[in-house]
Amino acid sequence: MDVQRPAAVAFRETVGAEDRVNVRRIVASSGFFSRPEIEVAVELVDDFIEKGPASGYHFIFAEREGKTIGYSCFGPIPCTTASFDLYWIAVEEGARHARLGSEILIRSEAAIKALGGTRVYVETSSRPQYEPTRRFYEGRGYRRETVLEDFYAPGDGKVMYVKVV
Amino acid sequence: MDVQRPAAVAFRETVGAEDRVNVRRIVASSGFFSRPEIEVAVELVDDFIEKGPASGYHFIFAEREGKTIGYSCFGPIPCTTASFDLYWIAVEEGARHARLGSEILIRSEAAIKALGGTRVYVETSSRPQYEPTRRFYEGRGYRRETVLEDFYAPGDGKVMYVKVV
Repeated sequence: MDVQRPAAVAFRETVGAEDRVNVRRIVASSGFFSRPEIEVAVELVDDFIEKGPASGYHFIFAEREGKTIGYSCFGPIPCTTASFDLYWIAVEEGARHARLGSEILIRSEAAIKALGGTRVYVETSSRPQYEPTRRFYEGRGYRRETVLEDFYAPGDGKVMYVKVV
Repeated sequence: MDVQRPAAVAFRETVGAEDRVNVRRIVASSGFFSRPEIEVAVELVDDFIEKGPASGYHFIFAEREGKTIGYSCFGPIPCTTASFDLYWIAVEEGARHARLGSEILIRSEAAIKALGGTRVYVETSSRPQYEPTRRFYEGRGYRRETVLEDFYAPGDGKVMYVKVV
């Protein structure tokens, strides 16, 4: 009898119409994000589908057994020479394991570097709920640049990180 | 013989197709902004013309004798409850005087407040060239929140200001 090994994860940078649904499902699965935030995530996919690379968005999707289970979205920050924003990085709730988030992050940083980027910016909330998110970045070379107090809402600040790649 | 008084300045929040040209002329006139920055300024007008208020952009234009000589562009920051970005505020080079910039700023803050905004964010460069810009904000109640070093380019940081309105 074979011992079942976990299926391999494949990565792609292509974007298809079905990724609107994939992104919505992945981002919604955590329960972290509000409806407007989920809509913003889907809009970035729409923008890419409409305008292609001119949208300024780049994606990395992770698939296992044909199912998309995680992704990132990043792009150059207009009017900067080499700064990029990592807009989204998310792994579907049930699929979280085996450092998949880390692998998507590492691949995103490599893609940013290949596109000429030297600085990666990420932002998250200062709320206690986002402590794991902050630890995720802090454990992967991201330096906390600042906290904009009350940015998202009273008591909900924006924590800004940067990593030089 | 009449003593000539300076013509009065009128303000409008409407946006027309001719404002693409107005914004380009105003933003280019200072010599401060790069070509990509000027394109971004015009794109915000395009976006408003295409989508209307759904674009998320609001404008205030200042006119004297029928000529548009200054403007601001601002809007709510997605996924925040009451934070606004002041994207652009500029007065045409030859028309700078009489605190027109201040008046556009005050009217922009009032409009933001009327739209439910409580925090206004503005960003500018840390380069010496932008010292007057930074003094402009600092003299009008804007608090320096942080400087993101090397954000725009090596040696060219982003200074972030906030004002609670």
